[in-house]
Amino acid sequence: MRYGLVGSSGRMGHEIKEVFSAHELVLEVDESGIFRRGEPNVFVDFSNRSVLATTLQLCSQYGAGLVIGTTALAEEDMKAIKELSNHVPVVQSYNFSTGINILKILLRESASLFEGMDVEIIETHHNKKKDVPSGTAIILKEALGREVPVHSLRIGGVPGDHTIFFANEGEVLQISHHAISRRVFAIGALRAAEFCVSAKNGFYSFEEVLRWTQKR
Amino acid sequence: MRYGLVGSSGRMGHEIKEVFSAHELVLEVDESGIFRRGEPNVFVDFSNRSVLATTLQLCSQYGAGLVIGTTALAEEDMKAIKELSNHVPVVQSYNFSTGINILKILLRESASLFEGMDVEIIETHHNKKKDVPSGTAIILKEALGREVPVHSLRIGGVPGDHTIFFANEGEVLQISHHAISRRVFAIGALRAAEFCVSAKNGFYSFEEVLRWTQKR
Amino acid sequence: MRYGLVGSSGRMGHEIKEVFSAHELVLEVDESGIFRRGEPNVFVDFSNRSVLATTLQLCSQYGAGLVIGTTALAEEDMKAIKELSNHVPVVQSYNFSTGINILKILLRESASLFEGMDVEIIETHHNKKKDVPSGTAIILKEALGREVPVHSLRIGGVPGDHTIFFANEGEVLQISHHAISRRVFAIGALRAAEFCVSAKNGFYSFEEVLRWTQKR
Amino acid sequence: MRYGLVGSSGRMGHEIKEVFSAHELVLEVDESGIFRRGEPNVFVDFSNRSVLATTLQLCSQYGAGLVIGTTALAEEDMKAIKELSNHVPVVQSYNFSTGINILKILLRESASLFEGMDVEIIETHHNKKKDVPSGTAIILKEALGREVPVHSLRIGGVPGDHTIFFANEGEVLQISHHAISRRVFAIGALRAAEFCVSAKNGFYSFEEVLRWTQKR
Repeated sequence: MRYGLVGSSGRMGHEIKEVFSAHELVLEVDESGIFRRGEPNVFVDFSNRSVLATTLQLCSQYGAGLVIGTTALAEEDMKAIKELSNHVPVVQSYNFSTGINILKILLRESASLFEGMDVEIIETHHNKKKDVPSGTAIILKEALGREVPVHSLRIGGVPGDHTIFFANEGEVLQISHHAISRRVFAIGALRAAEFCVSAKNGFYSFEEVLRWTQKR
Repeated sequence: MRYGLVGSSGRMGHEIKEVFSAHELVLEVDESGIFRRGEPNVFVDFSNRSVLATTLQLCSQYGAGLVIGTTALAEEDMKAIKELSNHVPVVQSYNFSTGINILKILLRESASLFEGMDVEIIETHHNKKKDVPSGTAIILKEALGREVPVHSLRIGGVPGDHTIFFANEGEVLQISHHAISRRVFAIGALRAAEFCVSAKNGFYSFEEVLRWTQKR
Repeated sequence: MRYGLVGSSGRMGHEIKEVFSAHELVLEVDESGIFRRGEPNVFVDFSNRSVLATTLQLCSQYGAGLVIGTTALAEEDMKAIKELSNHVPVVQSYNFSTGINILKILLRESASLFEGMDVEIIETHHNKKKDVPSGTAIILKEALGREVPVHSLRIGGVPGDHTIFFANEGEVLQISHHAISRRVFAIGALRAAEFCVSAKNGFYSFEEVLRWTQKR
Repeated sequence: MRYGLVGSSGRMGHEIKEVFSAHELVLEVDESGIFRRGEPNVFVDFSNRSVLATTLQLCSQYGAGLVIGTTALAEEDMKAIKELSNHVPVVQSYNFSTGINILKILLRESASLFEGMDVEIIETHHNKKKDVPSGTAIILKEALGREVPVHSLRIGGVPGDHTIFFANEGEVLQISHHAISRRVFAIGALRAAEFCVSAKNGFYSFEEVLRWTQKR
């Protein structure tokens, strides 16, 4: 795989380079410019929406797929990304953690099994995180399809833990996800990039990538 | 629901009576005899195989369904129970915990999602439990469909905890079941009895009861 | 040990009888009266303040020690109990759980070790518990000697879990107490009663009982 | 504080530079040589014993204290380090995690409180860790002062978790330490370095550093 990396000098860029080390980095974009050493067949962008236009233009130019993990996209951004997906394969998600996406699938598919049980969520993050509750907690609530109390702990340097409790009179079922480091997202990006280089044109979620991996 | 209870004076019998308190107990069987106050439409038996013949005979006599949680059944016992299920609905399981059965379904249906992740199981029980690993840990391993290290803690008076860990480089997913008390099995028995009074004749697992509840 | 039991027909009374089974129950008090079969050298009372006068009178009459776990005592009650403790040994506490009292000691004695770490508490109880946060969570906060966010989950039939999290940039320390059942309080009462029959007259906390056990 | 860093280009060296960013790095040692920009008042060495002679010589030359976290030291190394401590303050430990050292203190000081409870330990590390059980688990067992079953999980990329369970008939007490990343050791090194620049000459453990911090 020959990949292009947008935001290559940021923290997430560094993680991606380490995790993608078996592949060839042939194009880099950062604040100081665009550095070309070859022709990418996939682009990875976990930076921010200010460079989105550049990213989309580069994908078009090279006919390369796109893995995009940029958060806080506007409606017009999504429209432009979807337009690109008519010509190349695009994987877009706000959370490229394999575990969190497995969790979403589990919760959505088995929501009815938990009927009649009390449900609460605890999410724990570092004390610099401002948003309460976490975006992921909101995603998990949506997967459950019902209103659920969410408790938010903000302590030390915790990268991100989420636990869903189900309980009835006689038992407690508990499903937890623990992110060891931001590396988890780079691992997901790699999985998505490998998907991209062999997929048909189209717009895909990270969940579809997981299901594809599972079918192989 | 008018139910008959086999083993009504044992510890499990007491739990069942408390959990079934909204229903009418019309027939009891214990060591001292059979006490009839009405005609049951379902029987519940969590006692032991020595009274099985009596239980089966009573079900036939009243045309009542059967919820049977007796453990260590012999092959001939199962044969007799299945024969009964030609005439009435029968629910048989070695574990009537809703949570453990949900867990089995989750693990079996999502095994492929966890491919490539390391898996280990911890099970914790009271220090009087002799068998290592627990029967439930074995059931969970079977649901996962692969060989998995199991760690067994035997401490204090813990009724029964089971945790399955999945991990890759960047994250840990953990699914835990915690039994609060043996009441959990009585709650499952109630669910099964409610199923029995409206089901067609046949032999059902507790999983099928759960799926039925979920379809309603 | 020959003990007297006040509130012998309640749920806590039953637990006490089971846990004290190696000792001789020689006097019982319940709603229907006082039943004497011998002379107690210690009384156990986990009932309610309405019978306190009777309890105190009986202790005086027999020169017997007192283990009292009655909650929501008024100031005048405490005064009367302390007056009794001039003549016999008395152990009074609002929580006879060994673990919770160990936790209090740990937190108080090592509070300074945790300086500079973020602290939060999670307490989980059954969905019928009305008070938020739990009384025990308040006791733990006091032992820590600082203001701490407390998160309260109310799910299913959980008897009572408390977890204190300490975290800095690089690590999380977590101390949890899990009550298996109300039996935990009966076990503490037994420890206190054994203390009572050999202690000097005086007013003791359950913590002092623990320290005494530890010195033996 | 002006500090010297031995092993400045390794992974642990990078962590130390980030955590010590409020202080002045005036001397660096790595494979390519010694780089002097000023006079350190403390040295930090988490590299390996092959450079120990250089480290000790530099401390002597500058009259600077030493924080040394190098593992697998030989007897002669320890002798040389102790000799240095006659002239400057030295902090030596095989584990600079604040949490693990707090845990050691807690367990040692309260071992008697846990008498009569069952104890077991679970330790979880990444699947590349070879030693079983972990060195830290052995330290914790020693602090407990009794033989304890240890269960070792080796899954994914877990940096290091340790949990001690105490249980009796009615309750479970659980103390867990979770390392978020190797940063935890750099944070401990900073604490030790700050201690060093104000301590008298002598040989100190990291525990003594913690107690000193606590007294301030």
